[in-house]
Amino acid sequence: MIYLDNASTTKPYDKVLNEYVKINENNYYNPSALYKGAVESYKLIKKTREKIAYSLNTKESNVFFTASGSEANNLAILKSGYLKNQTIICSEYEHAAVYNCFLEQKNNGQNVEFVKIQENGEIDINHLESILTSDTALVSIMQVNNETGCYNNIKKISKIIRNKCKNCLIHSDGVQSYGKIKIDVEDLDIDLFSVSAHKINGLKGVGALYVKNPNKIKPIILGGGQERNIRSGTENVGGIYAFGLASEITYENLSLNSLKYKEFKEYIINFVKSNISDVIINSALNLDVNHIVNLSFKDVRGEVLVHSLEQKDIYIGVGSACSSKHKTSRVLSSINVPKDYLEGTVRISFGVFNTMEEIETFCKELKTSVELLRKFKRK
Amino acid sequence: MIYLDNASTTKPYDKVLNEYVKINENNYYNPSALYKGAVESYKLIKKTREKIAYSLNTKESNVFFTASGSEANNLAILKSGYLKNQTIICSEYEHAAVYNCFLEQKNNGQNVEFVKIQENGEIDINHLESILTSDTALVSIMQVNNETGCYNNIKKISKIIRNKCKNCLIHSDGVQSYGKIKIDVEDLDIDLFSVSAHKINGLKGVGALYVKNPNKIKPIILGGGQERNIRSGTENVGGIYAFGLASEITYENLSLNSLKYKEFKEYIINFVKSNISDVIINSALNLDVNHIVNLSFKDVRGEVLVHSLEQKDIYIGVGSACSSKHKTSRVLSSINVPKDYLEGTVRISFGVFNTMEEIETFCKELKTSVELLRKFKRK
Repeated sequence: MIYLDNASTTKPYDKVLNEYVKINENNYYNPSALYKGAVESYKLIKKTREKIAYSLNTKESNVFFTASGSEANNLAILKSGYLKNQTIICSEYEHAAVYNCFLEQKNNGQNVEFVKIQENGEIDINHLESILTSDTALVSIMQVNNETGCYNNIKKISKIIRNKCKNCLIHSDGVQSYGKIKIDVEDLDIDLFSVSAHKINGLKGVGALYVKNPNKIKPIILGGGQERNIRSGTENVGGIYAFGLASEITYENLSLNSLKYKEFKEYIINFVKSNISDVIINSALNLDVNHIVNLSFKDVRGEVLVHSLEQKDIYIGVGSACSSKHKTSRVLSSINVPKDYLEGTVRISFGVFNTMEEIETFCKELKTSVELLRKFKRK
Repeated sequence: MIYLDNASTTKPYDKVLNEYVKINENNYYNPSALYKGAVESYKLIKKTREKIAYSLNTKESNVFFTASGSEANNLAILKSGYLKNQTIICSEYEHAAVYNCFLEQKNNGQNVEFVKIQENGEIDINHLESILTSDTALVSIMQVNNETGCYNNIKKISKIIRNKCKNCLIHSDGVQSYGKIKIDVEDLDIDLFSVSAHKINGLKGVGALYVKNPNKIKPIILGGGQERNIRSGTENVGGIYAFGLASEITYENLSLNSLKYKEFKEYIINFVKSNISDVIINSALNLDVNHIVNLSFKDVRGEVLVHSLEQKDIYIGVGSACSSKHKTSRVLSSINVPKDYLEGTVRISFGVFNTMEEIETFCKELKTSVELLRKFKRK
């Protein structure tokens, strides 16, 4: 089986699963209890908080664990404490976990603006600049888009924002960039950054939010006061610890995997250009982040192509997994993919376990499938 | 090691952990994707939803998975769609995940009332009746209290509520009762019921909410639209499936374990009565639910007693784990435990792996520890 839907979710590292099991067998105690086993559980969380903080170049006290990247995004957008009469801004192609929070705030009467996207897939910085005011409360721009893999220069963007509005909160959804590039929240000069464990070969059910100024943020789940009152509920000790491990392993192998993904992407792009007609490549080769290739084929339905490749034990995505059951992609519309290509879109995304051999097999089978499907369609 | 803090959290069943690992190795796919592996993931969730529904005597479509019992409680209290000018009611000794939601709503200007507790540990039904009006929007009463183990007759309570206010939403926090007694939400005539996986030898990070009328409930996490739009975020497939398994195993062994816990409780109560002076037993023997024994000792600090028993590899709790780091217990204050006993409170809670031999050892060591600590104190 060739799994090429890693932007959707990843297979956990063996070591991650093994440690998870060990903790659940030997250290299943509630971290809020007082005896030594429980104190040990608490320390496992603390240790992980340090690891995640280290990977973001921040302090332990700025990291809050959540149950998902989506929850981290909700916490950042809905609970960061701006005022009712201020403006908040996000891009047109944010992940639904960000975008729908902005829609919700709009419905609540908040003034909300959406930044346009350029045809190269990056956000339109000039447009952002034109809608920023000195009273903008929050801007949320994702670092890497989940459907196209396109990279936004957050450092450059935050400079422009700070120039116009010093105290504006800057959030970036890092779910697709974390573990793919080095992250330095100090250098990026941002206030909020969301990450997820299961996108980096950790376990499902764990995310985290970096918060520059924890005093400003309000709780997302009320209760026993875990996560310094921001996110109550018995901590998922094993899952959290597994996240720290996954982060360590991922960052140890970062440059190796980056290089690998770049080779994979280059190979696919070259192959498609030379071997398949009527195709739009929605993901340009980038300097650092290359784990996603988004392709739109004319006269092929993405969904049918996915199922055709599935027959050959190759798993790829159509848009994002989250949007796979929706009609059309907000992301692809925002970058103006022509209508007769839009429905023929698939997303190929690489992970640490993929090999060049798999990519070669995939390309061969992709060509066969596209040709076959077009033969039926064009008959 | 003798673990007697099962109301705080439990050790997962071996089978639960094994299946979790298998799913994460072989079926780690995102349930929102379209290929067959992902459809399989989706089916695992569906299958679990059926299991949990079965255990509550409801339909699959009335069960929503969350990341914790706390999140289920927050969803029930904060998102069930009543109006700003209506009254909502909970008891004085609800778990913080319920109680703090009511405080939050009070701060938001909602009219909030708190039901008093009787000295026997049950809620004061007469007081509840006196504050109910035809316009009460929501009443939340826990089925089993997390500190004392005391049981509230929810069926009787819901009858009284429906009598005064037909359309009032009735929520019950079932985190401590689920898996300890048979639950029938139809028979209880309630609208919302919260459960948690890690209290029944499932894994941390999974809970669920029963919702009688899903149309009325609003999302708690916005995003990709998982859990029929109520709780977005990639589903924790393995954790959810493990919850279903834990529920099955737990309910298969319900009567056996109920009987066991009753014997344990009876033994401890009799032992304490005959062997230790100046002690208040805050948990009467009950017909069905007996997994918690709460004891208050004069001239002993609960925290010190916990640490003293820890030296003998016996783990017990002080109040609830969640409240263990707070000064005094809201629950014990509500049942009028005298001040000179209040700080000498410990909670012993049984689980499926405990044996009578362990209980006997515990009792012996409890007596030794209490006597030793009092010797120092009373010198």
